[in-house]
Amino acid sequence: MADQAFVTLATTDNYAKGAMVLGRSLRNHNTSKKLVAMIGPHVSEPSRAVLRKVYDEVRLVDVLDSGDAAHLALMKRPDLGVTFTKLHCWTLTEYSKCVFMDADTLVLSNIDELFEREELSAAPDPGWPDCFNSGVFVFRPSNETYGKLLTACSESGSFDGGDQGVLNSFFSDWATADISKHLPFIYNLSSIAIYTYLPAFKQYGHDAKVVHFLGKVKPWDYSYDTTSKRIKGQSQEASDMHPNYLMQWWELFCSSVLPLMKEE
Amino acid sequence: MADQAFVTLATTDNYAKGAMVLGRSLRNHNTSKKLVAMIGPHVSEPSRAVLRKVYDEVRLVDVLDSGDAAHLALMKRPDLGVTFTKLHCWTLTEYSKCVFMDADTLVLSNIDELFEREELSAAPDPGWPDCFNSGVFVFRPSNETYGKLLTACSESGSFDGGDQGVLNSFFSDWATADISKHLPFIYNLSSIAIYTYLPAFKQYGHDAKVVHFLGKVKPWDYSYDTTSKRIKGQSQEASDMHPNYLMQWWELFCSSVLPLMKEE
Ligand SMILES: O=c1ccn([C@@H]2O[C@H](COP(=O)(O)OP(=O)(O)O)[C@@H](O)[C@H]2O)c(=O)[nH]1
Ligand SMILES: O=c1ccn([C@@H]2O[C@H](COP(=O)(O)OP(=O)(O)O)[C@@H](O)[C@H]2O)c(=O)[nH]1
Ligand SMILES: [Mn+2]
Ligand SMILES: [Mn+2]
Repeated sequence: MADQAFVTLATTDNYAKGAMVLGRSLRNHNTSKKLVAMIGPHVSEPSRAVLRKVYDEVRLVDVLDSGDAAHLALMKRPDLGVTFTKLHCWTLTEYSKCVFMDADTLVLSNIDELFEREELSAAPDPGWPDCFNSGVFVFRPSNETYGKLLTACSESGSFDGGDQGVLNSFFSDWATADISKHLPFIYNLSSIAIYTYLPAFKQYGHDAKVVHFLGKVKPWDYSYDTTSKRIKGQSQEASDMHPNYLMQWWELFCSSVLPLMKEE
Repeated sequence: MADQAFVTLATTDNYAKGAMVLGRSLRNHNTSKKLVAMIGPHVSEPSRAVLRKVYDEVRLVDVLDSGDAAHLALMKRPDLGVTFTKLHCWTLTEYSKCVFMDADTLVLSNIDELFEREELSAAPDPGWPDCFNSGVFVFRPSNETYGKLLTACSESGSFDGGDQGVLNSFFSDWATADISKHLPFIYNLSSIAIYTYLPAFKQYGHDAKVVHFLGKVKPWDYSYDTTSKRIKGQSQEASDMHPNYLMQWWELFCSSVLPLMKEE
């Protein structure tokens, strides 16, 4: 459906690389949905040009410029800059339903079935599993919801300093109300979980649909040797792991994104 | 109700210490339920005597001796010894409903409301949150279920080598079928989660009802100085944490369990 879209966000050129790989991974698995990238003002022109080749729509979201409630909220809570930018996804009201995906996610198969779910559907966060992880979630754009989110955000802040805290406080019955809003964990599989409970990963991991490179070190922080096809600085343990998601990210980056960047 | 019980398991004197503290913590919070400890043949007579003071019923569960299906299953899968012993809780058919609790759990408030839940209710496992953690679960004793569990266990084994793998494979729709069978995480709060997502612990941890000392190092593996009220070997980080659950375990052990042991 034309009024449904996958949405991501990049406020820096690095996160833009993530968004490029994510977009390509969605296309490679033949999504029938639109792809929207929200970008911040610091994303460079060459990066924007590449994003335009991968995404149907690249939308500049400048909270400082916007003069709307987000701008006001930001004045009160300058610590929540990227969070306010992410919440902007609720303003994409030309779409009836969307799936937000962090720029540090990678799609491993077609996931269009996510659009059968309702707002707010998300997978549990490993660590504190009564919270959902806000790296992948189904939502319905709505200016009303957007306004309420901003109010909640500027009044109560975020218990974790980011969007995940805000969204969990706002959609506070996620853990207890409706099992259909619990996305299976394989739609937001974080690398952390693999180590924490390896037997479960071996049992269920082969069905993984979305990998999330959650945490401080992102795929683009490694360097990759295109000749030897090796990732520098990856621990031996991680590189022995099958499947090697970090390698998949880099292979997609080299095969599908680098050529587009070279054209710029 | 007289036909409802909290059930735990101890196959060694060390786990028996855990069971003593757990039992006392349930009594201190005025549970109206029966307390049942299943013990293995290696638990010493003095430990049994203390358990009898804390629990309404102390039942010897000797898989090797039992001559039932569990014995046969154990011949096929000797690696799953303690697992088969734990599954024995389904044979407590004089009770209509039970809550199983690992011997390494500690109750912080009355949790009798758990008996309003149905089989199989449990809290998500941090790490792989589409699995439940088998340290706390609501079940209905039934010889039929017991037989099916043993069959499943001896035919397919356990993906993690323990009862959690077996139970998750058997109650395989837990993640997707019924939200009321998802116990809030505060009924099985594992120390691991505190470090993984500290802001969530700070936001929600004060409501904790059951702490689970999951993992290799158990409370009884530390040593405690009764004079200085200090735990040796606990990391500074952990001891600075409020509330200090490990300290609570030791304080209960010293005040309520040691005196009973000295009588023996
Ligand atoms: O400086 C930043 C930080 C975050 N993000 C966006 O916000 C998401 C969430 O942040 P991140 O993935 O770093 O958090 P984590 O998943 O590691 O908790 C990212 O994937 C990006 O889409 C961004 O554009 N710029
Ligand atoms: O040698 C053992 C190991 C386990 N258990 C029982 O099985 C439970 C599960 O094991 P454990 O708590 O060690 O596993 P974890 O929760 O750390 O995964 C324990 O709490 C005990 O009730 C036991 O009695 N003897
Ligand atoms: Mn992320
Ligand atoms: Mn345990």
